[in-house]
Amino acid sequence: MHRALELASKGIGRTNPNPLVGAVIVKDDKVIAEGYHEFFGGPHAEINALRNATESVKGATMYVTLEPCSHYGKTPPCVDAIIESGIKEVVVAMTDPNPLVAGRGIRNLENNEIAVWTGLLEDEAKELNEVFIKYITTKTPYVVMKTAMTLDGKIACKTGESKWISNEKSREYVHILRSRLTGIMVGIGTVLKDDPSLTCRIGEGLRQPRRIIVDSTLKIPLESKVLRDDHAGETIIATAEGADVLKAEKIKYSGAKVIYLPSKDGRVDLNKLMESLGEEEIDSILLEGGGELNYSALKAGIVDKVVTFIAPKILGGKDAPTPVEGEGSCSMRERIELGKIKVSTFGDDVMIEGEVKRCLQD
Amino acid sequence: MHRALELASKGIGRTNPNPLVGAVIVKDDKVIAEGYHEFFGGPHAEINALRNATESVKGATMYVTLEPCSHYGKTPPCVDAIIESGIKEVVVAMTDPNPLVAGRGIRNLENNEIAVWTGLLEDEAKELNEVFIKYITTKTPYVVMKTAMTLDGKIACKTGESKWISNEKSREYVHILRSRLTGIMVGIGTVLKDDPSLTCRIGEGLRQPRRIIVDSTLKIPLESKVLRDDHAGETIIATAEGADVLKAEKIKYSGAKVIYLPSKDGRVDLNKLMESLGEEEIDSILLEGGGELNYSALKAGIVDKVVTFIAPKILGGKDAPTPVEGEGSCSMRERIELGKIKVSTFGDDVMIEGEVKRCLQD
Repeated sequence: MHRALELASKGIGRTNPNPLVGAVIVKDDKVIAEGYHEFFGGPHAEINALRNATESVKGATMYVTLEPCSHYGKTPPCVDAIIESGIKEVVVAMTDPNPLVAGRGIRNLENNEIAVWTGLLEDEAKELNEVFIKYITTKTPYVVMKTAMTLDGKIACKTGESKWISNEKSREYVHILRSRLTGIMVGIGTVLKDDPSLTCRIGEGLRQPRRIIVDSTLKIPLESKVLRDDHAGETIIATAEGADVLKAEKIKYSGAKVIYLPSKDGRVDLNKLMESLGEEEIDSILLEGGGELNYSALKAGIVDKVVTFIAPKILGGKDAPTPVEGEGSCSMRERIELGKIKVSTFGDDVMIEGEVKRCLQD
Repeated sequence: MHRALELASKGIGRTNPNPLVGAVIVKDDKVIAEGYHEFFGGPHAEINALRNATESVKGATMYVTLEPCSHYGKTPPCVDAIIESGIKEVVVAMTDPNPLVAGRGIRNLENNEIAVWTGLLEDEAKELNEVFIKYITTKTPYVVMKTAMTLDGKIACKTGESKWISNEKSREYVHILRSRLTGIMVGIGTVLKDDPSLTCRIGEGLRQPRRIIVDSTLKIPLESKVLRDDHAGETIIATAEGADVLKAEKIKYSGAKVIYLPSKDGRVDLNKLMESLGEEEIDSILLEGGGELNYSALKAGIVDKVVTFIAPKILGGKDAPTPVEGEGSCSMRERIELGKIKVSTFGDDVMIEGEVKRCLQD
């Protein structure tokens, strides 16, 4: 199963919004086939493994990281192929997170006299497919909030200068994150201040992240890089109902999409935005916002994971910006707590990541 | 030498302002004696090792972490004892950092036909005695700035509530830090807000840190814990020339010491304060200030090391306090850079420590 998970992870950044799945077929204590879900719309891991078998799979055991599907999607059901192949035993790491079909594939196999075991390395399998699980169960994207700050909690000098807080290795890893997630989201403040491209500058051949700009009043300049750069991912401007229609037409003319959303406290309702982006098949977002957007996102409860880079530098300044601003908590009780903490280092920078356990109360 | 360093570290928190020193005597590839400098004013490591020898040290080799002294201090010179003992070879990790005597002990040994080797594990020895090196060479204390913040760089909620940012394990470690350093320093803001005891609540029998309160205009309430608690370390109130003399007399009556210092930009001149504290034989300080005092300290260039605890919590708030405030840097070029970074974890908290490499420009 370890090997199956390893195979599954090879599809990172290529299968969205489909899950990452790996499969290994073992016969007489020998691996006779391996396969994984390689790209969106392509054959599932189980089918690839069956095709790659070096000998007959009759009587063999299949290890697969996710419950095999029993329904017609872009490809025929894997369960049928497994039954036909003569495999006698299937070991599954996790059941299908989609509540509508969960268990159906397993029952189908069992009804055809195939022994099924579930739960082997289940935690690891769930972690690998955190994006898929969130998206398939809520139809809204998995949101990773990424920030980079100094050892005194600043994301820029008081003047706004922020090149660079984190080191080259950290910034390179951010491009890996960008390549793994379907969308990248910033607020209009970041566009006005930095005019970023929001592209992924690594991974030849990987698709570019779709760019989402939260811009309640359509302040975006038409000459912004995100509206002019053709070689990058699609740009979506999320604005509030009532925004300038003429400006919206000009933005659309540049090739970008404009989504109108209800406003909440004068700003785009981020929960509604997540629903719209889910409909656009955006299963995951890297949020690289400033303090205001980050606070709104946390308050709206749309953030699933926080990834923070901490550089061993100090800038000082009562007025220097910090990663999460807005109103803020009124007491320690109202804090957001993170769990499943992981700590890594990139040179002298430290990266702390954790899942959001509880959100700021309204 | 590894063993000698290990022995030396047993004296942590007990020898200040003397150095930490360990010594091991080896004869015929066998350790025949060990010793370390156990407490301030007590016998030096070399003497303890000679006394502890299980057989004659004639012709043996001594490994010692610091160049043996050749002058009369609180105890007679170690060099004489080594010469008399018949030891034939001395291996030294680092020479005496005091420029006035550096090399003198070694020359003295060599003139008496003892072979001397220096530099073995020198970096480790210097790190162990970072406090002593700073103090003996500058006559001002080694200052460790300690902060605890959330993953979004806040040291408290916007309301000031800060119990607790860091977890119990981290806070316990702070008491270990307090026990190792001679003084603990905060600003008057912290006293007014938290009324802390500034005591060390671990380590039975260890002396309590001396408490230094920076209070330019003597705002300290006479009922503050630092002025009332008799079982804690001495309290020193650092104030600016021109502060209320009557209030100063009342403070002195409570048993605290009041030091008058020139003011700089309306505040106590921290460089002058460090000179005064050096004269008081305070060789090391744990600075547990708020954002203003921390900024002033960094700007004055008195901070040697920064220790930051980062808790996986988020508070948000544009107005929530951060570890270093004040004016702050105007550009990334003006940043303070830290070196020799070390990362540790205390449960889910992360501790990052580093030495100050360059200070904010004035």
